[in-house]
Amino acid sequence: MWVNRVTGRRDNGGVARTIDWDEHEAAIVLVDQCALPATYRLLHVASVDDLIAAIQRLAVRGAPALGAAGALGVALAARVHGTDTAAVHADAQRLAAARPTAVNLRWGVERALAALPEGAGAVLAEARSMLAEDERVNREASAHAADLVLQRCARRPLRLLTHCNTGHLAAVAWGTALGAVWHLHAAGHVEYVLADETRPLLQGARLTAWELARAGVPYRLLPDSAAAAAMAQGLVDCVLVGADRVAANGDVANKVGTYGLAVAAARHGIPFVVVAPSSTVDKTVPDGGAIVIEQRDAGELTHVAGARIAPDGAPVFNPAFDVTPVELVTAVVTEHGIFAGAAR
Amino acid sequence: MWVNRVTGRRDNGGVARTIDWDEHEAAIVLVDQCALPATYRLLHVASVDDLIAAIQRLAVRGAPALGAAGALGVALAARVHGTDTAAVHADAQRLAAARPTAVNLRWGVERALAALPEGAGAVLAEARSMLAEDERVNREASAHAADLVLQRCARRPLRLLTHCNTGHLAAVAWGTALGAVWHLHAAGHVEYVLADETRPLLQGARLTAWELARAGVPYRLLPDSAAAAAMAQGLVDCVLVGADRVAANGDVANKVGTYGLAVAAARHGIPFVVVAPSSTVDKTVPDGGAIVIEQRDAGELTHVAGARIAPDGAPVFNPAFDVTPVELVTAVVTEHGIFAGAAR
Repeated sequence: MWVNRVTGRRDNGGVARTIDWDEHEAAIVLVDQCALPATYRLLHVASVDDLIAAIQRLAVRGAPALGAAGALGVALAARVHGTDTAAVHADAQRLAAARPTAVNLRWGVERALAALPEGAGAVLAEARSMLAEDERVNREASAHAADLVLQRCARRPLRLLTHCNTGHLAAVAWGTALGAVWHLHAAGHVEYVLADETRPLLQGARLTAWELARAGVPYRLLPDSAAAAAMAQGLVDCVLVGADRVAANGDVANKVGTYGLAVAAARHGIPFVVVAPSSTVDKTVPDGGAIVIEQRDAGELTHVAGARIAPDGAPVFNPAFDVTPVELVTAVVTEHGIFAGAAR
Repeated sequence: MWVNRVTGRRDNGGVARTIDWDEHEAAIVLVDQCALPATYRLLHVASVDDLIAAIQRLAVRGAPALGAAGALGVALAARVHGTDTAAVHADAQRLAAARPTAVNLRWGVERALAALPEGAGAVLAEARSMLAEDERVNREASAHAADLVLQRCARRPLRLLTHCNTGHLAAVAWGTALGAVWHLHAAGHVEYVLADETRPLLQGARLTAWELARAGVPYRLLPDSAAAAAMAQGLVDCVLVGADRVAANGDVANKVGTYGLAVAAARHGIPFVVVAPSSTVDKTVPDGGAIVIEQRDAGELTHVAGARIAPDGAPVFNPAFDVTPVELVTAVVTEHGIFAGAAR
């Protein structure tokens, strides 16, 4: 039923929307990203508490998808609480705070909440329009990024490197940095994509590799720590990543490891392109130093798939994100074109 | 019996020699590093084939320990084959080729083999003297490195970052880069060690964290990709790593990820110190470009502890090592002092 309800477009490798509203069940339906790549499974989320739990265990993740989750969560709260707008606002605040770094989550919550005076139906309509907008905006942003890559890189076909997951699964559909890969691949310009596995939660190994394989894009999976060596060996023409929050000056908070990639890319003169919808830009934050970075649990490092891989009780340094200063970024590209960066 | 046969020194956290000769069984005894940290288990290896298998699955690893393994393997072959020196030479060649990058393996094989004209007993005596020498040499190299760190870093106590495993487990005893940590910790100069987990085989999470915990050195485990962020946040005073092969010009082949650390450390003006016995220097190789880099199996990236974490058949880029050019290295320190680097 899920698959049949979607647009029928097959240009996303047959993947349905990552997150959507199920009118019949009055619930949010989302792809359980914790179960991939072993199992493609849908979760039906009918309460804000369950949505917060799904966000915190990263069953739904990726800045654009979190924006959609925030908006749909407010729609859910508005439906549950009826005319008790104080309860809707309380749920909305808890939801917006579920993860501190991705600005899109709060953006989605606040935009949907603005429709609350017109009733629960208006909130849902706003949330649904945001889902459609997300795909359109990300297609545009990634098309601009693909054009920039073709301008900046002379080699054909291109050898691209990416980090974490920025495809359909990170958005409602299509994607950001991987969205640029879809455009470039459709035009026949991609030799391969090097996909960082992205420790600790392995979004690259579990999700990006899965998306690339389904889309028929040649790829190789690599340890995050091998990316610099790949650059040194001349195997990378361009680095493409997403963003969780972009400061007003263009500094980029993104999945931990992005900063190290940018430093290595700069040493090798390799273009470093960030693709994000404009909703990821937080103009209230002047620069990266002011972005709150989420620290995650030790268990993400001490266990993999339930198996212990470190001593009992090992203390950890486990930031979910890092900050890349704008001087290391060729361009931050949104649906409006280049927002910041050395290529501006 | 294993523990009782050793020197009785407890300054190595109670760890026995990582690899030794068991006269009673006429076998090599080694700590099975694949079983740590869950289980501290000894393997008794009585054939060259079994030794090659242990080396290839990294039950014994670390450049100095591989040198000892090479020498003991020749002693084993000499004992098994008696006067058939051609058979000993054939075994020695297979052993030396078991892993291509770590030069110490071939060095250990060739040095023990030089004693073969004097008989199997002479080969074993030479191998055993190399075991004792390994600990002495690494203590000296790491003492020089500790002195250099104290000269180069003003802050007390020190916040150190390391990669892979370079402790007792990487050598016969004591260690190289972690050996410097042991010296600095004994003098009260260590605030903490940040230990990169070191994908794909997690030598940092499994082995270094275990050694640091046993030695009572405060530490935090981190994803390899978080090291650059830790440097950017001012959490690192010095990076200490080992080496698998050092070229004549000072370029360093070491565990994949070392190069990216060096690039990030250079950006932040953080000293980057390589600690290795002089047997790791290969003067036949003019620079890092001539060092053969071992590619390892896809399974190391697609599975962790038996669980699949990537799509079936995912192709990989999985080099075991990378090359750090000498201009990014503060110093390569051996038992003779500084061999190469910007601090020379």
